[in-house]
Amino acid sequence: MTVSIIGIGLLGGSFALAIREKYPKMRFIGVDSSPVNGQLALAKGIVDEVMPLAVAVSQSTLVVLATPVNIIMELLPMVLNQLPAGATVVDLGSTKGLICAVADTHPRRNQFVAAHPMAGTENSGPGAAFRELLSGKNLIICDREKSHADSLTLTESLFRDVGMKLFYMSPQEHDLHLAYVSHLSHISAFALGLTVLEKEKDEQAIFDMASTGFSSTVRLAKSSPQMWAPIFDQNRENVSDALAAYIEFLQQFKQVIDDQNVATSLDFMQRANVIRRVLDGIEKR
Amino acid sequence: MTVSIIGIGLLGGSFALAIREKYPKMRFIGVDSSPVNGQLALAKGIVDEVMPLAVAVSQSTLVVLATPVNIIMELLPMVLNQLPAGATVVDLGSTKGLICAVADTHPRRNQFVAAHPMAGTENSGPGAAFRELLSGKNLIICDREKSHADSLTLTESLFRDVGMKLFYMSPQEHDLHLAYVSHLSHISAFALGLTVLEKEKDEQAIFDMASTGFSSTVRLAKSSPQMWAPIFDQNRENVSDALAAYIEFLQQFKQVIDDQNVATSLDFMQRANVIRRVLDGIEKR
Repeated sequence: MTVSIIGIGLLGGSFALAIREKYPKMRFIGVDSSPVNGQLALAKGIVDEVMPLAVAVSQSTLVVLATPVNIIMELLPMVLNQLPAGATVVDLGSTKGLICAVADTHPRRNQFVAAHPMAGTENSGPGAAFRELLSGKNLIICDREKSHADSLTLTESLFRDVGMKLFYMSPQEHDLHLAYVSHLSHISAFALGLTVLEKEKDEQAIFDMASTGFSSTVRLAKSSPQMWAPIFDQNRENVSDALAAYIEFLQQFKQVIDDQNVATSLDFMQRANVIRRVLDGIEKR
Repeated sequence: MTVSIIGIGLLGGSFALAIREKYPKMRFIGVDSSPVNGQLALAKGIVDEVMPLAVAVSQSTLVVLATPVNIIMELLPMVLNQLPAGATVVDLGSTKGLICAVADTHPRRNQFVAAHPMAGTENSGPGAAFRELLSGKNLIICDREKSHADSLTLTESLFRDVGMKLFYMSPQEHDLHLAYVSHLSHISAFALGLTVLEKEKDEQAIFDMASTGFSSTVRLAKSSPQMWAPIFDQNRENVSDALAAYIEFLQQFKQVIDDQNVATSLDFMQRANVIRRVLDGIEKR
């Protein structure tokens, strides 16, 4: 069985490393617009060969689209056109609405599975890939009823094999929830990083005075712009709503501080403290 | 030698646990407005005895003020009034301007050392204290020239003993920098927690879909409101400026996303990516 990984970065690379451990005879082809990434992926043992897209797809049982989401939208119709009968293409994009809409217009829609692993780090590229990334994390599959039973079974089996728990929902539900639980976190971190870099001119002071809380809050500001710009663009209505709500809470909090309204400040933070229950639930799962 | 810890929580408790390991014969008295905290601190071995403030202070060589910053401001003049000659009081508050201004009006100013350990977690109370909290972290001392040489030496020695690196600056510099590298992170996390809790009504979806990035960004929203409300209030001018700049960057980013201006979105995130250098520096120190 041959699997092609299109975009051999953190996610595609980690998936391949985890699957290879379970299925040592599975053959992996890498496809990447960057020749350097291809070489690194070969050197790390993520893939056995690197090939152009069309050559790779034509000999694959499974094609994994793990590029930025704008590239997934571009490549998906081409991959479906070239995919052998009975083969499957799965995407790992962080948005699902537009990608599923593109798939819906294709006559081979049922060879496609729309998936999103809830896993990542702030690092990117084949060097950032590691075998344990997906283990214990959740996988969302959208529009499962539109995928052929065999394509769905193959996808579900492999992601369960790497230790993921499966959830199902519509692309619309996915994109709405993701705006709050992922996309907004990234924007808050990017903006925080920028505020500190551009307003706090004394970089030595940041080094000397920042503690682990700062590092934790701003960590996602290290994330790849090439990956995130198209995510925010594809999910812009939900992201914009989430961002508007976030800005509104910040403005309220600023007013409360300016007014020296300590009672309301306490109330604001006590309401936010309820997030402890949610975070404890996430850590336990 | 007797040390009194006023406010036996995460910071005061962790300091006592670390010092006790180095100086097993040092006697520790705990003072806390909560009888439960006093009992827990005794049961955990943080302090040897629990006493009312005045009794504790009158027999101490060192008094450590580790309460919320509004309580530090209230207690500092009383503690200085009751402090034996030659004894020292050090505060561990996260703001320094108002606390140092209060100290400056006291005839015994030179028995006071203004300090701030750049260490903490999102947890509070004696149960959250642990011996390793301060090790490898930075301590800021403000207005050192206003402290008696003996008080300064005692403070510096003990904090070096627990593995801290010492830095010196004015209270004004401290409060300005802290607004950016700590206070703003906390507000961003509180507001993010509140946005997700109050706008994303489907709590199960948060459990199923949030990944480690979300947990990391929102972690500080678990922090103690009683500790943070007076910090934001005491440092409100700097915090308000930092928050205004943060809101401005978020509004710009929202506009860029609404306009589908992907090029500017990329540029915004690439500028924020520079924070990687800062974070790598913090992690290495």
